[in-house]
Amino acid sequence: MEIINGGVCAAKGFKANGIHCGIRKNKTKRDLSIIASDTVANVAAVYTTNLVKGAPLLVTKENISNGKAQAIICNSGNANTCNSNGVLIAQQTCEHLANYLKIEKDDVVVASTGVIGQPLDITPIKNGIPALVDGMGYDNSTAAAEGIMTTDTKLKQVAVSFEIGGKVCKIGGIAKGSGMIHPNMATMLVFITTDCAISSEMLAKALSTDIQTTFNMVSVDGDTSTNDMVVVLANGKAENKEITAEGQEFETFMKALNTVCVNLCRKIAADGEGATKMLECKTTGAKTLEIAKTVAKSVVCSALTKAAMFGADANWGRVLCAIGYSGANVDVTKIDVSFRSQKGEILVCQNGAGVDFSEEKAKEILLESEIEILVNLNDGEFFSTAWGCDLTYDYVKINGDYRT
Amino acid sequence: MEIINGGVCAAKGFKANGIHCGIRKNKTKRDLSIIASDTVANVAAVYTTNLVKGAPLLVTKENISNGKAQAIICNSGNANTCNSNGVLIAQQTCEHLANYLKIEKDDVVVASTGVIGQPLDITPIKNGIPALVDGMGYDNSTAAAEGIMTTDTKLKQVAVSFEIGGKVCKIGGIAKGSGMIHPNMATMLVFITTDCAISSEMLAKALSTDIQTTFNMVSVDGDTSTNDMVVVLANGKAENKEITAEGQEFETFMKALNTVCVNLCRKIAADGEGATKMLECKTTGAKTLEIAKTVAKSVVCSALTKAAMFGADANWGRVLCAIGYSGANVDVTKIDVSFRSQKGEILVCQNGAGVDFSEEKAKEILLESEIEILVNLNDGEFFSTAWGCDLTYDYVKINGDYRT
Repeated sequence: MEIINGGVCAAKGFKANGIHCGIRKNKTKRDLSIIASDTVANVAAVYTTNLVKGAPLLVTKENISNGKAQAIICNSGNANTCNSNGVLIAQQTCEHLANYLKIEKDDVVVASTGVIGQPLDITPIKNGIPALVDGMGYDNSTAAAEGIMTTDTKLKQVAVSFEIGGKVCKIGGIAKGSGMIHPNMATMLVFITTDCAISSEMLAKALSTDIQTTFNMVSVDGDTSTNDMVVVLANGKAENKEITAEGQEFETFMKALNTVCVNLCRKIAADGEGATKMLECKTTGAKTLEIAKTVAKSVVCSALTKAAMFGADANWGRVLCAIGYSGANVDVTKIDVSFRSQKGEILVCQNGAGVDFSEEKAKEILLESEIEILVNLNDGEFFSTAWGCDLTYDYVKINGDYRT
Repeated sequence: MEIINGGVCAAKGFKANGIHCGIRKNKTKRDLSIIASDTVANVAAVYTTNLVKGAPLLVTKENISNGKAQAIICNSGNANTCNSNGVLIAQQTCEHLANYLKIEKDDVVVASTGVIGQPLDITPIKNGIPALVDGMGYDNSTAAAEGIMTTDTKLKQVAVSFEIGGKVCKIGGIAKGSGMIHPNMATMLVFITTDCAISSEMLAKALSTDIQTTFNMVSVDGDTSTNDMVVVLANGKAENKEITAEGQEFETFMKALNTVCVNLCRKIAADGEGATKMLECKTTGAKTLEIAKTVAKSVVCSALTKAAMFGADANWGRVLCAIGYSGANVDVTKIDVSFRSQKGEILVCQNGAGVDFSEEKAKEILLESEIEILVNLNDGEFFSTAWGCDLTYDYVKINGDYRT
């Protein structure tokens, strides 16, 4: 398996585009994106668990209940959530796109991201669709990735190439996500395409398994969005024998999917609103997987730990405190904590108590932009990783006047 | 019942003091406090649920297992937590105080607050005890309240006067708490005194009932401290007939205790680290009390809501989002949200969708320093209140280099 260029257009038979249609005031920002397969593809998706659900999610869920889809349309600048006409607008978006693309309207996945509770006008979308579709290209993933960005500062795309049954397959994805990031059984907006032939059933299984250790382990601010969604389209153009059951080929596919998802998770965490550092908490030695996950997530979610990392302060007491209130049943007197970055690794807590360490060395390690927080519970064989970012002045600034 | 001055010295027979003994580097900051009853008092306490527990809590819990105590000693500047010799130091603190006060060492409540994981030196405490005790006064609550402050910017004390069985009783308290505030079944450091005669059993019942709707409903940053504790001493000097069972007198006591606790909750929330605004989320119309509490707490805990309030941005979508992911089973389409302050009240969301409102008026309301977020679930009779504060640049600044 190797990392390749191309994002959602890396896999055969996928075109993409992103344009400015007029939802956002800033005319230099793209606000409408499309990803389309040349033929109908198998599809799987997972959605936010927030009880407040964006209208596009409801429409998408119904459209793809048959396991098939051909195109994804997504606008930024407005979440189309908590609006009384939300479902109607999402349906109209699907209809306009389907008419112009000459596909079935229930083969359209629709998504929206932006402000909650402001009615979304269909006009710019309707008027923008011809240019959006006509501008599609087999090498245009970047434009689509740009069109779904909100407070994101960096474009998020990745692709990998792998082999199944002697056929080269590709899988690629784009993501948006910077604030309101605390997925639970679902995630921010992520669109993944593959030319690997895999049944809808196995695709759903692969996706729902994968997110447990990838997107569900990312947190920027503890706020679970109303519009989270991950969608995978698989159009079979790689011409491998369709994966219809578990086995080695399914494992290979899972591994490729996981590589794409972990890559996007790290990109989302690193680009957390206002973030200057990506935090990766690796828990080892846990009695159960659940404990490993709970501990890792509690550490990357702790506002105090996040603020300490912003200040490059080796305040391991914050880490221990976050483990203690996580709800996981751990033996505090066995816990070791280290910090690691490109500049090295330093043990700061052993058996639940502080050890002598060089503050200078710790500072040097923590001034890097990717920090690993290593927690060994010394109590079993399970491990887990969670991703997050530091808490900074800019997070507050961005969200103090998000709507204006 | 009326609010009176005097803090923990308002009730008869309680002396207090606070001095600088040398734990903190800044010599102008008091770092050691005492509250002592003239005679042995009944005592009740609740503690943090964090699995990482400060050594002083362990020692206090054992000391007061017989329901009796006479003095409280508390240092700031060091939490005496996650230190291998922590329990020993806490025990020595009790011994030194007991020797000098000529009381039993297991009648001492010991508490510490400050940095986790740095060994606490007994020397300044031992050397400071004579001056601490000799300087005690029946009107010296303020010095004690100052001595327990860490990142607090404001002193927190209150007292009330009430009548039981024809006798005037008083109850007063001091509190510290500014960051790492997210109590769960326990709370930050709060010391309460009363001269009301009440059995240890009923005192424990009153306290454990009260905190469910007071301290457990406060959150500054979602981080549950390792050293949270609320202690109430009742020395019976008001000479009312001892309260030993439920009934009207117990209700009167509960109401007075609740007034003191709500007052301290509001003070803690308003003085949250870096806070510029106190947030009070009042949930009404809930199907169950649990739902009312869960919703109220989720709203005041939401980083996005907190940041929006800092920016005086009427972004009610953040509030609805926080309700949606709270885990409470609510009907989103019934929810109304209003913002209220001294400048008036404004409805921003009805039946789960936005309504037209004056942004100008909303801004005026949200620029005040005390904001009420009113959530009506329109689904039942239960209600609840939670307290929090806005998320600001200064919270990040304070915690970016807390140890240095």
